[in-house]
Formats: sequence, C-alpha cells, structure tokens
Amino acid sequence: MTDWAAEAARLDAADSLAKWRNEFLLDESVAYLDGNSLGALPRATSARIEDVIRREWGEGLVTSWNAAGWIDLPGRIGAKIAPLIGARPEEVIACDSVSVNLFKLISAALAMRPGRKVVLSEPGNFPTDLYMIDGLVQQGLAEQRLADRAEIEDALDDDVALLLLTHVHYKTGEVFDMQRLTEAAHEAGALVLWDLSHSTGAVHVDLEEAGADFAVGCGYKYLNGGPGAPAFAYAAFRHQEVLQQPLSGWMGHKSPFTFVDHYEPAPGIEKMLAGTPPIVSMSALEVGVDLIAAIGVDALVTKSRALSEFTRAAMAEVVPELPCVSPEDPAARGSQLSYRHDHAYELCQALIARKVIGDFRAPDLLRLGFAPAYVRFADCWRVVSELRDILDSGEWRRPEYAARAAVT
Amino acid sequence: MTDWAAEAARLDAADSLAKWRNEFLLDESVAYLDGNSLGALPRATSARIEDVIRREWGEGLVTSWNAAGWIDLPGRIGAKIAPLIGARPEEVIACDSVSVNLFKLISAALAMRPGRKVVLSEPGNFPTDLYMIDGLVQQGLAEQRLADRAEIEDALDDDVALLLLTHVHYKTGEVFDMQRLTEAAHEAGALVLWDLSHSTGAVHVDLEEAGADFAVGCGYKYLNGGPGAPAFAYAAFRHQEVLQQPLSGWMGHKSPFTFVDHYEPAPGIEKMLAGTPPIVSMSALEVGVDLIAAIGVDALVTKSRALSEFTRAAMAEVVPELPCVSPEDPAARGSQLSYRHDHAYELCQALIARKVIGDFRAPDLLRLGFAPAYVRFADCWRVVSELRDILDSGEWRRPEYAARAAVT
Repeated sequence: MTDWAAEAARLDAADSLAKWRNEFLLDESVAYLDGNSLGALPRATSARIEDVIRREWGEGLVTSWNAAGWIDLPGRIGAKIAPLIGARPEEVIACDSVSVNLFKLISAALAMRPGRKVVLSEPGNFPTDLYMIDGLVQQGLAEQRLADRAEIEDALDDDVALLLLTHVHYKTGEVFDMQRLTEAAHEAGALVLWDLSHSTGAVHVDLEEAGADFAVGCGYKYLNGGPGAPAFAYAAFRHQEVLQQPLSGWMGHKSPFTFVDHYEPAPGIEKMLAGTPPIVSMSALEVGVDLIAAIGVDALVTKSRALSEFTRAAMAEVVPELPCVSPEDPAARGSQLSYRHDHAYELCQALIARKVIGDFRAPDLLRLGFAPAYVRFADCWRVVSELRDILDSGEWRRPEYAARAAVT
Repeated sequence: MTDWAAEAARLDAADSLAKWRNEFLLDESVAYLDGNSLGALPRATSARIEDVIRREWGEGLVTSWNAAGWIDLPGRIGAKIAPLIGARPEEVIACDSVSVNLFKLISAALAMRPGRKVVLSEPGNFPTDLYMIDGLVQQGLAEQRLADRAEIEDALDDDVALLLLTHVHYKTGEVFDMQRLTEAAHEAGALVLWDLSHSTGAVHVDLEEAGADFAVGCGYKYLNGGPGAPAFAYAAFRHQEVLQQPLSGWMGHKSPFTFVDHYEPAPGIEKMLAGTPPIVSMSALEVGVDLIAAIGVDALVTKSRALSEFTRAAMAEVVPELPCVSPEDPAARGSQLSYRHDHAYELCQALIARKVIGDFRAPDLLRLGFAPAYVRFADCWRVVSELRDILDSGEWRRPEYAARAAVT
C-alpha cells in the first residue's frame, strides 16, 4: 500500500499556495471539504465588516453611500470577479441571489428571441435553475424542455430561445464543454446562460473565448463571501444595449436619484440591478473576492486538480468499495468528487462528528469539495482514512447519525 | 418668541423613550434627521455580527445552516416584524429587496385576477414601485395606470387587478387612508399592495384591520437593519394557499433539500422566498427589529408625532419663509416633514457641514425624518436654529455646497 500520509505531507510541503491558508480562520483540527457549499472565513473579513458597521454606517451614516463608495460596490466587485471568469470588467456585476439573477437573464434572453419560448436545460440541473424556468412558465412566457446531457445538442431547434446549463454539475462534478455547447446553441439561433456557481474561483472558465452570452454565479462558495453572499451576473458587452430585464428596480435606473416616474435602464451592466444592495454582505463578499484574485485563479485551478487527483487515487486504493461518480479526467470535472453509498447520509454525519466536513446530496452521494485556497493534502488524506475507519468500525450505524436535519 | 431651546430641553427630560438612544451608537454632536433614509446603528449590532462571522460562519461553517438557525432567519425576523404592522407572525417574511418583493407580489396579484391587467398607482409614488410595474408591462403581463391621489377611487374599475400604493409618501410624508382605499379596491374587485417602507416602526399600521391583501417594507429605515438591509413581504393568510409568485427559487420550495427537478411551493409565507438569503445582513436586520420591538411601536408612534409637531411649530415661527409641504395633521402624515426652497440641495449640504443631517429630494425639498427611537427634541431644535443661521448668513451660497454628489 502507498504511504498516503507521507505523500500528503510531501505535497503540502511543496505546495506554493500553502501559505494562503493562513489568510483564512479555520480550526486546525477541522478538515473542511465543503467549501463548495459554503467557503471558509477569510481572516480579513471580520475587521473589514467591523469597519463597515462602526465607521461607515455608525459614523458616516447616510453620507457613506457616496463617501464610503457603497453605491459603487456592485460594479466594483463585479469588475474584480470578471478576470476569474474570462470576462471584461464592464460585463459583470454583483447583486441579488443566483436565483434572482437567473430570472433576470432568462427573461432577457426570451425577450431577445421573440417567437421562441423554449428554455432548454438538463434534468438534474441544480434545482433553482430549473425552478426559475418554472417561474417564467407559470407567467406564460416560457416553455421548459429538459434533455439528458448527451442529447442536448439534438434538442436544440428553432423553438429554443435559451440554453441554460450549470457549468459544473453540483452532484457529480461533471463539466460541460462550454465552448462546444455555446457554439451549438448559437448555430441553432439560441442564446446561452451558464451557471458558474460551482466553477468560479476553482475551475477554468473563459466566457469570452467560449463566446458565452450570459452567466450567473455564486458568492458564497469558492469566492468565500459568507453565508448567502450576493451573487453575480454577467452579460456579454455585445448584448448590453438591447438587454431588458424585468426586475427593473431603481438601482438599475439610468439616473436613480432623479426620482422620475418612468423607468429608463442604465446603459451598461448596471441595468441588471434591482433594489438596494445589502452593503454588509456585499462588503464581506468583496473581501473574499479580493483574496481569491490575489492568489490567482490559474494557480487555484492547478491546485484544485492536484487535490482531487490525490484524493481519487487514495480512495481507489483505501476505500475501493465506494464507487466514484465523478469523471476520471480532472479537466472534465469541477473541484469536487462524489462517492455513492446507500448510507451516504450516515457516513457524512459520522465524518462530521470527527471534524471532517463533506456533505451529503440526496439520495446516496457523499460529496467532497476541494477549495484550493485553503484545503491541504493532509485534509484529503484525513477524509479517506477516517472514512475507512468509520466503515470498518461500523460507527456510521449509530442511531444519532440517521436523524436528518433540515439542511444537509 | 418662544424659547424653543428650553422647550426642547423640557420635552427631552420628560421623554420616556429618551433612554433608548443609548442603545444606538450615534455621535452626540450629530443631529440625525435622516433615519427615514438609513436608520442609525444599534449598539448591539457590531457584537452580534462579529459572532455571526467568527463563531457561526468561521467555526460552525456549513453546519450553521441548522446549528445557528440560519435557515429560519427569514421567517423568524418576519414573525418579529408582524406585530409592528398589525399582521400575524405567519404572514410576514424577511427577504430580498423591496423592489424584488414588489415584483413577486404584483405578479401574484395579477395571477389572482385573470382577465384584469391594470396595476393602479399614483404619479410621484416612490420610483421603484412604478419601475417594478414597468417590468411587468415590458413582459406584456401588466398595464400601468396612474391616477392623482384624489382620483384613485374613481380610477378603480373592472380592469384593475391591483392597487399599489405607498402608505407614507416618501417626499411629502402624506399618509393614505389604508382602510378606506383597501375597501374601495375590494369593492372594485381589485387587490391591494401597500408599500410600508416609510411607515414600519414609526407610523401606525394595522394591515389586518384594514383588510389589506399584500404589503412590502424596508429593513434599513426605521427598522435600523443597516445599509441595504433585506426587506420584508406580507401576504394575508387567506391568500397564501393560492398565491403563486414567479421568483420560484429553491428557498421557497416545499422541500428545498430534496433537490427535486420540479418546483412545488412551500405551503405558507415561505413560498415568497427565492434564493439563499444574505445571512450577515439578515442578522444585522434582526438586531434592529428586536430593538424596535422592545421599545414598542405604539410609544414610537406617539413620540414621532410629538417630534414632528415640535419641529413644525418651531419652523413656522423661526423659519416662516420655508413652506411646509407635509400635512398639518400629524395623523395624516408619516414621521417626516418636508420644506420647499429653491436651493434645498444647498441648504441640505450646509446643514450636513454643521453635522445636522437631513436630506434633499429633487427638485426642491429639504426632508427631515424623525426616527423616534433616537431623535431628541434638541436635535429638532438644532435643525431649525442652524437653518435660520444658514439662511441669515447666506452660508448656503458657498460654491462647495452646489456640487451634486451621486447619491443625495
């Protein structure tokens, strides 16, 4: 058998990103493999938020909208996210949630393809992506069509206004070929909206190269913006002039503070804004984005692949009875691996009791996420060895691990 | 002339709510009369947010969705807001922004009145209320009809699906008669949506007594939830079963964590949720709501009227040349007074330079808000006396006060 502990120690010692873990406040005793659900806390966040609260809000009061630059936060953060996804600064804005941004961009795409009503996606896509299509179906403005992954290109026809896909599948980690599918959609006359929630900050994305039309993404996973952090929206510059989105709130107005009765959208990406952004949560997001940008997305992608390759090899040797449902090729999967077991929920709970945090995805997956900014190879080895131990001891059969909580 | 300074001192000494000002972190040298735009910082917020960030997020990580009750925050805060507006706990939920919640409820109302497309409001309503109707007009689902305040009842006909009004006008402070207009709308077969942004926490509201259908409101004004704090939405219990809103994100699903492909709304007010809520900003909102609930809304309403009556009387005697555009009867206006002057912007800037913060509303209004939880009668006297001084000295003519900033 390989000495995986020694191998992990060797890889950690050689890891040029290892120093960045100190920029997060993470209990040394915890192996955190759920940064793809909620990213860890950057060390700088607490002081920054204290400053936003006490100085900007408490002392500056309403004048901080200008003096502290609150009004510029959505665009400023968007511009910082842009290089992580191969976009231009003026193409990205931070605002609202992924769900709300999906609604805006699905609606915008439908308006750009009059006569076409179909939004094409795949069954098993992250639920909120499908649910937001449902919302427009209920409004009578869209039809939902679902095609299995291998049949998506065949399902693109003259009725399809928009292809809506999640770049990295939240359960299996499978990656769609963004460029090929974008081209196929365009050939069929459709637009494409990519959900980058499980990609941004850990997986290679180049929206410009792919010719993508629209994208959304999450602030609280690999961007470490905090629980429920605001999301972001991308619209290719070439579409911004005609783009219309129906959540036409005052922050997206051309001149929000002239208080006129009629809505006139801002000329650029600011037209994606709706209401007043939550400044405290936005400010926490900015800290996380700054940190990921400072580390550098290419180095993060490289380390992500090394972490998951190490784990996949160790699991295959040490816990061979759990089948891996994620692609073998690291370029074909996101920063995660999922393993199938009939009692994946109980395994996950038993791991958490040992301070090894992965997560469960119904009905039978144990999901491990590799946030490359702070996950160590030692953490990866720990999940493998603890899992072996939990399976051998039968510890996962304890009744307390079977009780399901509201959120898993 | 009245000795207004002495009168203010007498009223502050007799004020049973005076002690609550200590629960806010406000510079003693600042007279803050803009709590109707951004409420002041509660003393408890900073420590609470530090705990959310370091312990709940940093240590609890993803397990805090259950362990720290994050998943319950929207409903828990909603239930605390409910008694401030005459609603039942199960009728209110905190989420998203006012703009986004308007969209949900306008859409829901249109779906409940098939065959009717008109959303009736008044010109000069707070812009985002009108803009969100525009969004549905663009979608082809609504028609906007505007009628002046005195003609609203005449404009209610068989085409009107929804009457959408702001309870307290953001510029003048005028209050609509909620009960009378709700009844008139119902007689015409229409539903009613009240925007309580300038009411909640400072003005008497009883949605149940008025028979209201829907409402939205703001978390960052009199509720002191912080800049861009999440908003709230109210749906009368009798409508909740049939209510459908198109921002059908995963947090509003009946079982969000079963990750099924098809959207099934939660049975109750939770169906108003869309995406993942911003927990840090939500937690700050909860501190503000707790504080207002502890003070008690009836006492706040009483003090609000006393503050604005004092100010109105002092202004009438000391600065008689500025006409007051707010109603004379304190029961007919919200917790604010607005004065007209051709150079209201410059007056506002000159006041800010003297640490007296009110705000300007285009084109010519100086607006003073009375957040009764922390505003002192001495603050009210200060704005009057400083205004007299600024007008007499011509100080407002200084060129630096004429430069308009992005947000005013």
